[in-house]
Amino acid sequence: MTAPSVPQTTYVLTLSCPNRPGIVAAISGRLAELNANITEAQQFDDRDSTIFFMRIVFEITGGQTGTQQLRDTLAVLGATFSMEWALHDRSVKPKVLLMVSRFDHCLVDLLYRWRIGELSIAPVAIVSNHPRDVFADLDFYGIPFHHLPVTKDTKPAQEARILELFAATGAELVILARYMQVLSNEMAASLSGHCINIHHSFLPGFKGARPYHQAFARGVKLIGATAHYVTRDLDEGPIIEQDVERISHADTPDDLIRKGRDIERRVLACAVRYHIERRTIINGNRTVVFTP
Amino acid sequence: MTAPSVPQTTYVLTLSCPNRPGIVAAISGRLAELNANITEAQQFDDRDSTIFFMRIVFEITGGQTGTQQLRDTLAVLGATFSMEWALHDRSVKPKVLLMVSRFDHCLVDLLYRWRIGELSIAPVAIVSNHPRDVFADLDFYGIPFHHLPVTKDTKPAQEARILELFAATGAELVILARYMQVLSNEMAASLSGHCINIHHSFLPGFKGARPYHQAFARGVKLIGATAHYVTRDLDEGPIIEQDVERISHADTPDDLIRKGRDIERRVLACAVRYHIERRTIINGNRTVVFTP
Amino acid sequence: MTAPSVPQTTYVLTLSCPNRPGIVAAISGRLAELNANITEAQQFDDRDSTIFFMRIVFEITGGQTGTQQLRDTLAVLGATFSMEWALHDRSVKPKVLLMVSRFDHCLVDLLYRWRIGELSIAPVAIVSNHPRDVFADLDFYGIPFHHLPVTKDTKPAQEARILELFAATGAELVILARYMQVLSNEMAASLSGHCINIHHSFLPGFKGARPYHQAFARGVKLIGATAHYVTRDLDEGPIIEQDVERISHADTPDDLIRKGRDIERRVLACAVRYHIERRTIINGNRTVVFTP
Amino acid sequence: MTAPSVPQTTYVLTLSCPNRPGIVAAISGRLAELNANITEAQQFDDRDSTIFFMRIVFEITGGQTGTQQLRDTLAVLGATFSMEWALHDRSVKPKVLLMVSRFDHCLVDLLYRWRIGELSIAPVAIVSNHPRDVFADLDFYGIPFHHLPVTKDTKPAQEARILELFAATGAELVILARYMQVLSNEMAASLSGHCINIHHSFLPGFKGARPYHQAFARGVKLIGATAHYVTRDLDEGPIIEQDVERISHADTPDDLIRKGRDIERRVLACAVRYHIERRTIINGNRTVVFTP
Repeated sequence: MTAPSVPQTTYVLTLSCPNRPGIVAAISGRLAELNANITEAQQFDDRDSTIFFMRIVFEITGGQTGTQQLRDTLAVLGATFSMEWALHDRSVKPKVLLMVSRFDHCLVDLLYRWRIGELSIAPVAIVSNHPRDVFADLDFYGIPFHHLPVTKDTKPAQEARILELFAATGAELVILARYMQVLSNEMAASLSGHCINIHHSFLPGFKGARPYHQAFARGVKLIGATAHYVTRDLDEGPIIEQDVERISHADTPDDLIRKGRDIERRVLACAVRYHIERRTIINGNRTVVFTP
Repeated sequence: MTAPSVPQTTYVLTLSCPNRPGIVAAISGRLAELNANITEAQQFDDRDSTIFFMRIVFEITGGQTGTQQLRDTLAVLGATFSMEWALHDRSVKPKVLLMVSRFDHCLVDLLYRWRIGELSIAPVAIVSNHPRDVFADLDFYGIPFHHLPVTKDTKPAQEARILELFAATGAELVILARYMQVLSNEMAASLSGHCINIHHSFLPGFKGARPYHQAFARGVKLIGATAHYVTRDLDEGPIIEQDVERISHADTPDDLIRKGRDIERRVLACAVRYHIERRTIINGNRTVVFTP
Repeated sequence: MTAPSVPQTTYVLTLSCPNRPGIVAAISGRLAELNANITEAQQFDDRDSTIFFMRIVFEITGGQTGTQQLRDTLAVLGATFSMEWALHDRSVKPKVLLMVSRFDHCLVDLLYRWRIGELSIAPVAIVSNHPRDVFADLDFYGIPFHHLPVTKDTKPAQEARILELFAATGAELVILARYMQVLSNEMAASLSGHCINIHHSFLPGFKGARPYHQAFARGVKLIGATAHYVTRDLDEGPIIEQDVERISHADTPDDLIRKGRDIERRVLACAVRYHIERRTIINGNRTVVFTP
Repeated sequence: MTAPSVPQTTYVLTLSCPNRPGIVAAISGRLAELNANITEAQQFDDRDSTIFFMRIVFEITGGQTGTQQLRDTLAVLGATFSMEWALHDRSVKPKVLLMVSRFDHCLVDLLYRWRIGELSIAPVAIVSNHPRDVFADLDFYGIPFHHLPVTKDTKPAQEARILELFAATGAELVILARYMQVLSNEMAASLSGHCINIHHSFLPGFKGARPYHQAFARGVKLIGATAHYVTRDLDEGPIIEQDVERISHADTPDDLIRKGRDIERRVLACAVRYHIERRTIINGNRTVVFTP
């Protein structure tokens, strides 16, 4: 007779709270009492803000009862330490809504990483202000496509449609994969912490339009890209990841655009990975990123 | 009347032990009981070897009595979990012995970083197989210099002198800052875990002599340097840090040597920093490096 | 009445010859006589081998008559200076044959760059030792696919088929986009200078099989990939491009494989670009690469 | 009887002129007539401005007569093509004036590279707005030191003194090695093209004061440094070289300053090397840099 198999779940817990002695002891003590096995833990004390940040990965058995017990325990800890916390089951793939305009390199890259199982997401919708024809060469592998054109006048209605879609699909993250429309303040606020954008410059350099042309005009020797959470302040959201590449006097704006595609797609993919692995915590206008 | 000032000490605790649930809870629980305030903590579960590694930085009050209490507590924990551990008072600068042959770029760089307070070390001796004249242009700022020439015949005696010096000065680390003599197996074993070498190639490529000439002959497009702990197996010790730079077909061996100097000095300085901040733990023939 | 439009052609001329004074003057003088407008020129004197290398891009008018005149001029120059030279019309897209085994990240990446016009190639065939089913998710956009399975016994016949295909399609370049079969010496010799491979390590480190597992076992802190021309000596061909990424003790072999995919695809794409822009000239077991 | 030794000189010729066919043929033809042996040549056609840029290194015999002949030839070519040109004898070390405020890492680094013969310069003066005591630990190896303090009121007089020194020493380059005073417009104009500054940010991000604190506040993930020619527009001069390093949320402003020192010294040294090897030509508010 074999023992009944015990359901085991891997959770990622992220939290932040005012710093004070005993937080780690309290959390790890409670988790030990629940027979959780901690496999990863990272913490950060922000000396400026005196806020404490933590990410813990642990395995726990007990199925649904165990999960309720865990949530109850965290609720008590949360109250004790005035803690903001989030618990994610690692086996649940985050639902994401992908938005794109005409340039599809980031979209294609994310879809490839998803298709081969590298990026553990569940794309629930692709939204574009351009029609499906623009992406005629692309197989969307059954992901619903929504053409939501936008003009100055229709913007409120279009954004309302996007937010409806976001709610209806149960998405938890919007990825602006070179979506070239500026979100309204209201939309940005609604998606706060749930929307990642790729900006095609090494921010804070070259904000605004046509950053590669700006970089060319200024004669910089490196160009870059920036993935950030979207906030009301355009190009000012908390930065998740950045990278650069070397250019020379002989590179034209078109060369910068070409080199930029490579930087953009790897920076965005990296930022999305950090987000879905729950490695990012927003800290004011900055981020804590617990890199592997 | 003012309160008497309470002595506060910052410690770095590093440890490794067979992995099992409850380690973090036990350690953080005991530290909380001693009113320690944990400011940094990093851990790593090696799934292959099932060994658990941890680095914790904490502040504690209580002076000498407190320290004894802490050590007693760690001794009990160490026995319970079959733990190897080391405790370092962060205010105590590690004594280091610097060894160099003819090329002084790494030595000069380390001395500069020490002199401006960037590298928190206490150099207790500079040893060279070349006489003081070779470094006529250098100010050693009062650090005792020892000329210990070496031939095949005198090597055992010379190495014995170095080990005597190591013991007599209370040094805990030997830095081979481009010391171009191969240590004997006995010497390497004596200094195991306490000796860092900078190898002027991106190991495991180009082991042995004249790596830049080897790199040139092979036509690689990047060259590098490797800082590693010294072991009996030449060029096979646990790697702490590596870096590379781009080269082209137009670079001569002399250009590689020049570019290499920059890589070597920053890689060695980085590895020394990691060591003295107790960020490195040897894991077989590899290292765990808890980077900041 | 408007003037008849004059056909203008842009050529890339690459050459190498024993170095001696007057080469540049002779070439630029003859080109000036033909009213060519030089837009790019790069040269390299290899002091070791005393061979001179040059790449010149120029615009010329005159259509077919002009081209013949140009070729005649180059033939004379070539004889005078014992020169090896090649002339390529920039508007002609090089025909390439793509080979792949199970992992398709490099293939997908190259096809994307081709599809959006970034990589100016004409893929004439995709060859795999695996059947079309393995790539069921991929659209080959009409490029003929050839399933050429291989065993130890059928290898000579299979390679003969590939060479036939190479000849029949008029391809000038074979790209081994993670084709995991070792070519025979005969095949490698037949394709000498016309076959680029991506090796998933930073050569000369970790030659042979499973390089990411080797890198993990050795505990290196950077992993890389190498694009090289294929020669009879496995993993010893002239290197075109290399790049690396940082890893840590926490990265598993699977993490290295994942990070490696990104390095491999950008290194291979870069090497292919250099080749088709005629920026590479083989110099013994090394390459001259006239980067932009 | 041995033949009399023939004096041979290596020259670097840099030039720019309106682009038109035949420039390269004319120059290389005239140089061939003078029996010059071209060892390096790089060119750049700026399609925007239709200006042509070139750098040629060649060996020539004939001593003083030969040089006069060469200069005469270049004068004719210069007039024919409306060319700006400069001819430098490679064996003559450029005289440089080094300026520094309190932080000496760039100064120390440049002096080291000079002392070991890596950087082929002749330092003729070190100028600081701080007294010699501030650099008590430094050996200046006989280079004259000038303490030129500056206040708002004395600035015109102080700058006049610097320009006098520049003229009197025959210096051709001023290196602002972390000289923390803003030059007046007049001074900047006087030194136009002859003054390199190291700015401790990745321009155009974080112009102005305390860039590392700005970078920390913005939460960027990479910091950098920029070496540029000084112009009237503060922080807007033509960029010669830039580089970056990765930082994390855990890095304090002090950590950024520490990491920045490494970037600054290597970026400045690189820019100085490019300048003295005559690899840089100013092109409006940008630079052409013929990298090796």
